[in-house]
Amino acid sequence: MASTTSASGSRPGGRSARVRAQVLEATGAQLVEQGYDALTVDAVAERAGVHRTTVYRRWRDVGGLLADLLEAAADDSWEPADTGTLEGDLTALNEEILAGVTADPPLTTALIAASFRSAQAADALRAFWEDRYARCAVVAERAARRGELPAGTRPRDLLVAATAPLYHELVLLGTPPSPRLPATAARAAAAAARAGAFTG
Amino acid sequence: MASTTSASGSRPGGRSARVRAQVLEATGAQLVEQGYDALTVDAVAERAGVHRTTVYRRWRDVGGLLADLLEAAADDSWEPADTGTLEGDLTALNEEILAGVTADPPLTTALIAASFRSAQAADALRAFWEDRYARCAVVAERAARRGELPAGTRPRDLLVAATAPLYHELVLLGTPPSPRLPATAARAAAAAARAGAFTG
Repeated sequence: MASTTSASGSRPGGRSARVRAQVLEATGAQLVEQGYDALTVDAVAERAGVHRTTVYRRWRDVGGLLADLLEAAADDSWEPADTGTLEGDLTALNEEILAGVTADPPLTTALIAASFRSAQAADALRAFWEDRYARCAVVAERAARRGELPAGTRPRDLLVAATAPLYHELVLLGTPPSPRLPATAARAAAAAARAGAFTG
Repeated sequence: MASTTSASGSRPGGRSARVRAQVLEATGAQLVEQGYDALTVDAVAERAGVHRTTVYRRWRDVGGLLADLLEAAADDSWEPADTGTLEGDLTALNEEILAGVTADPPLTTALIAASFRSAQAADALRAFWEDRYARCAVVAERAARRGELPAGTRPRDLLVAATAPLYHELVLLGTPPSPRLPATAARAAAAAARAGAFTG
């Protein structure tokens, strides 16, 4: 959820993409290092080495910057790992979440915190998550084809059950990260799904 | 998680308890109505009709006010409902969480948001939750005695699995509250626990 794609300046549209990458990188760095209160369009422009009117014109305000940062983080090429089992796929997904939430610098947690300050950031974060659930529906579909899941299992409910404990422990409760957390939450959600908890 | 106990002024310590109730009520109201940025000791003192030096002396700062508000909200007499089944107990717990998170005024969500601004509020919120998990361990113990759960089921992991989806949906994702959410999350966690996902 943290990387922004870098772009070459030699392709058509390259300069625009390069400016975007610089500005979004500066937005994330400013947020993480100085906090939301010091996140201003002027500070981001200065940090990015871009003229402030360029930033105002394209992103308008801090909400626009955060929303675009989350949109860039969605990463069009991302897809869930295909490990051959439901529990394996969910564990792999949770390993990615654990890595994101415990990354240094802590951009993911800073963006979640920012979503409580900016309605635009909150909307963008929700869109990011809903996009991830949609892309991960294939995890449930593959499991159903393998006969691991009962027909009519709702993928989104399964995915929220599998991943919510990580955000709850690591972001809301501030529990020290346990390496067994991804597999435990994945195993629980998979067991619940097999038992039919997400159908009907 | 929202109520603060009111206290009679006629008992010994009654005045002190009354001042506390007034100040904590003012803290919650100020937070919900004006937001964290407008939450100051002076604003709380004025709203509570209490001298500001009293508030500074007893609570010191906004972090102290929020921490005490959460401590008061813990409510010493609270215990989980005993419905006769694991799924029933977890559903009842989740109904309380749903009611708290969707309450008007939205004090619970405001306190969660404040935990991203104040380390003292974050610590107090964690203490509140950990206290709830400890009190709810009896839910798992009763289920184990009834033979509903395998030996060695970890109550805290079960409780996080049962409740985290509600906070994730309602607080982080901003999903419109669904009346079936408490039972769905409870049923999933109970099924996972029965399958042994929280042992070993």
